Amino acid sequence: MPPEQQLQELKTRLAEIADLGHASALLGWDQQTYMPPAGAEDRGQQLATLSQIAHTKFVSDEIGKLLDDLQPYVSQLDPDAFEARLVKVTRRNYDKEIKVPVEWVTEFAMLTTAAHEAWAKARADNDFPFFQPHLEKILDLAHRYADFFAPYEHIYDPLIDIFEPGLVTTDIKAIFEALRPQQVELIRQIASRPQVDDSFMHLTYDEQKQWDFGVEIITKMGFDWKRGRQDKTRHPFTTTFGLGDVRITTRLFPDHLASALFGTLHESGHAMYEMGSDPSLSRTPLVGGASSGIHESQSRMWENLIGRSYAFWQCFYPRLQEIFPTQLANVSLDAFYKGINKVEPSFIRVEADEATYNLHIMLRMELEMALMENSLAVRDLPEAWNSRFQEYLGITPPNNAAGVLQDIHWSGGMIGYFPSYALGNLIASQLWELINADIPDLPAQIRRGEFAPWLAWLREKVHRHGSKFEPQDLIQRVTGTKIDPSPYMRYLSKKYTEIYNL
Amino acid sequence: MPPEQQLQELKTRLAEIADLGHASALLGWDQQTYMPPAGAEDRGQQLATLSQIAHTKFVSDEIGKLLDDLQPYVSQLDPDAFEARLVKVTRRNYDKEIKVPVEWVTEFAMLTTAAHEAWAKARADNDFPFFQPHLEKILDLAHRYADFFAPYEHIYDPLIDIFEPGLVTTDIKAIFEALRPQQVELIRQIASRPQVDDSFMHLTYDEQKQWDFGVEIITKMGFDWKRGRQDKTRHPFTTTFGLGDVRITTRLFPDHLASALFGTLHESGHAMYEMGSDPSLSRTPLVGGASSGIHESQSRMWENLIGRSYAFWQCFYPRLQEIFPTQLANVSLDAFYKGINKVEPSFIRVEADEATYNLHIMLRMELEMALMENSLAVRDLPEAWNSRFQEYLGITPPNNAAGVLQDIHWSGGMIGYFPSYALGNLIASQLWELINADIPDLPAQIRRGEFAPWLAWLREKVHRHGSKFEPQDLIQRVTGTKIDPSPYMRYLSKKYTEIYNL
Repeated sequence: MPPEQQLQELKTRLAEIADLGHASALLGWDQQTYMPPAGAEDRGQQLATLSQIAHTKFVSDEIGKLLDDLQPYVSQLDPDAFEARLVKVTRRNYDKEIKVPVEWVTEFAMLTTAAHEAWAKARADNDFPFFQPHLEKILDLAHRYADFFAPYEHIYDPLIDIFEPGLVTTDIKAIFEALRPQQVELIRQIASRPQVDDSFMHLTYDEQKQWDFGVEIITKMGFDWKRGRQDKTRHPFTTTFGLGDVRITTRLFPDHLASALFGTLHESGHAMYEMGSDPSLSRTPLVGGASSGIHESQSRMWENLIGRSYAFWQCFYPRLQEIFPTQLANVSLDAFYKGINKVEPSFIRVEADEATYNLHIMLRMELEMALMENSLAVRDLPEAWNSRFQEYLGITPPNNAAGVLQDIHWSGGMIGYFPSYALGNLIASQLWELINADIPDLPAQIRRGEFAPWLAWLREKVHRHGSKFEPQDLIQRVTGTKIDPSPYMRYLSKKYTEIYNL
Repeated sequence: MPPEQQLQELKTRLAEIADLGHASALLGWDQQTYMPPAGAEDRGQQLATLSQIAHTKFVSDEIGKLLDDLQPYVSQLDPDAFEARLVKVTRRNYDKEIKVPVEWVTEFAMLTTAAHEAWAKARADNDFPFFQPHLEKILDLAHRYADFFAPYEHIYDPLIDIFEPGLVTTDIKAIFEALRPQQVELIRQIASRPQVDDSFMHLTYDEQKQWDFGVEIITKMGFDWKRGRQDKTRHPFTTTFGLGDVRITTRLFPDHLASALFGTLHESGHAMYEMGSDPSLSRTPLVGGASSGIHESQSRMWENLIGRSYAFWQCFYPRLQEIFPTQLANVSLDAFYKGINKVEPSFIRVEADEATYNLHIMLRMELEMALMENSLAVRDLPEAWNSRFQEYLGITPPNNAAGVLQDIHWSGGMIGYFPSYALGNLIASQLWELINADIPDLPAQIRRGEFAPWLAWLREKVHRHGSKFEPQDLIQRVTGTKIDPSPYMRYLSKKYTEIYNL
């Protein structure tokens, strides 16, 4: 078979696997949005079957042979060419996935479906012991997964690599250790200043109006409703079933305006990244985000660098006041801007302010590492959570629902994901410095509600590449350096110096 | 391998195929409820991939060999035993499906996804030529499908057999030919009497209140919301993703109270049948309805025999009046009952009264047969539709949206389905006579809103068997005769004699 034909054969096989992945994603989306409770058991079977078929098809001898055979052909190509990257990325995924037995894949799918239901119930009932056996099984699976990749430098490395290809635990620890003292110092300084008022954020806001305003702003920012939609869910997420179908979810609370507002912006950031892959990457392993951290850089940019900026609210605050006159007529733009940027230790990660957010992540990463190292048992996790929370943030969660049970990730088997959120914050600021250098009147554009040039910049530099490049490589290509916490600290420092008169 | 182990192996393989079918069903449900328009192309690919994998897995040599090997074992069992029926039904399906090449399966899935989008647009725009090339391709596929089963008595037979296993065109024609003159005569008699008034059905009814009332009554009738849900769609349908997840859809019009009301009852009838399979049949080919006709007997029973009965509205009409006082306070129960049973030739099948409904079906069956016999070209279909409509019902559709484009079936490749609706009417009445004999105070129970004994009867006699028996066999077992139009004619005649004083 000539290499062109082999490449076509590889693409056909990978497209079939992409279809199975997208079908699974839809089953997962439905599970978290509309599935009736009694559907869970069969849904688990279905997800397990699809995962198992996709896995078996991917680790087939035929794909292995195609990758081997194509190696000499693609090594003559430009290493950045689509075909070269396709073979390289597929090879990397293949070499990883072939180490994972199909039984593990099936068990993982079954277990996480049941665990998701258990977690939701446990969180609603504030009942950690109900979730505990599920989490224990998930950690057992995580241990077994890591062991497929032995020897490793750290047992957490193979988990990190799922979400951040090419990064290892020591890389992330080094970044976090450089960051933490600076963040802690900043929070300390802020705490010494008079607090800003955000009580107006907790008046009663009609949920439908919140929904409509969210839709209005993300539409102006470029969210394409022909290619996506938004639904309600317990825990917001973004999911993709193809370049023409990228969905976000949100949740609304009448007494918490920030939740849906910044949540919608956050998920839209993910969605715009997913929608932005070059169409030629469709139904290949190169479509979609380069890593969870790069993904979070996009969502956090929408949520924070844009969504909590003064310029953004110069544009949208009059409209928000119009929608909620009784709540906001007497709140000035300055007061609103300060309110949405209030820094205060709080329990829920997704609602944490920008200054304290990364501490939530570091806590989770440390607990996950301890669980993986077997120096912490699942049954002791709530206590470990609470005591470390007190240590880092100076407060203790009133219950497990507002503590160790708050996140969906563990129930979905996503051990090793959390660091990506913090990396995303750093990467977002790295990109943001560059964008502002390249588009000097960006704040003025935002003030006028013009988002097209900014989005075009991201499309060109980041989105269109999909997952052609590993995260460190991509950031190096775009910014000239590796992932670097200093732009993030510069950003935080400048912003809060103004808000809190540091 | 001992037969018990072979049976287990067969069940495992069939369960995997059931999972793929349920995943496809969810993709189809989503396509018709929530999918953004640009998702259609990838969705087609996904459905094609899933169909192709399920088909390939089903027609595998391994399943063929298991069926061969198990034959001597199951022939010693009670022929009604689960294992015996599993092998028999699977063998029948296998022998059919092995004749269909995988390329056809893939093409069918791709084509019908595109055709569904085209049909929806064509219907919205009243633009038959836009849909025509899609329908031509679908008919080409239907011809090719039928030819896989040559020789046949009639080219329509292999299509009928998809929906009514064991029935052939001549069976159905014989039933319809016995029925038509009686129905035509009944309609003639009704037309000679003063018409009843149903103008109150077309006042303005709040859509949310219509929705809520529909939910209220099907809840009382036993619809289990833990195992199902309802969503809005252009064309109502019921779909199943497992015994714990059966979904109905409905559509609402502010000026057409009957549409959502009876549509919801109809789809609930399908759903209750799907939910009623014995749990031991789960994830096997024996779960779910015995045929489309048996399915329609359940939906039509809920919609008409119950839903348009006097006793039912003795129970629910006061509540409906309470919800819509301005529209219904001055409409008596008698007037309401007559209004919802008004007989009048009309354009839209799903909204046709019980007396004219079957003529809509006969027209479709004749056109489908003509298309399959190549005595009618797709481009001539609108004219053939309209002229035959005039002949049978005495009226001509004002446009193709209210004529040839009204039904979703052809866009989904469902050629040969329509006769099942008429068969369903007949079967429903056959069962109804028996239920009334077995539960003499059924009308009194309905009047009191007690539906449990009636549902229990259906569960015991029909639902729990799933598709263990072919439709004629099942009806023979339950009623002692084959499908018979006379109970239906007795029912219509009695009902309309009272309403129209014939």
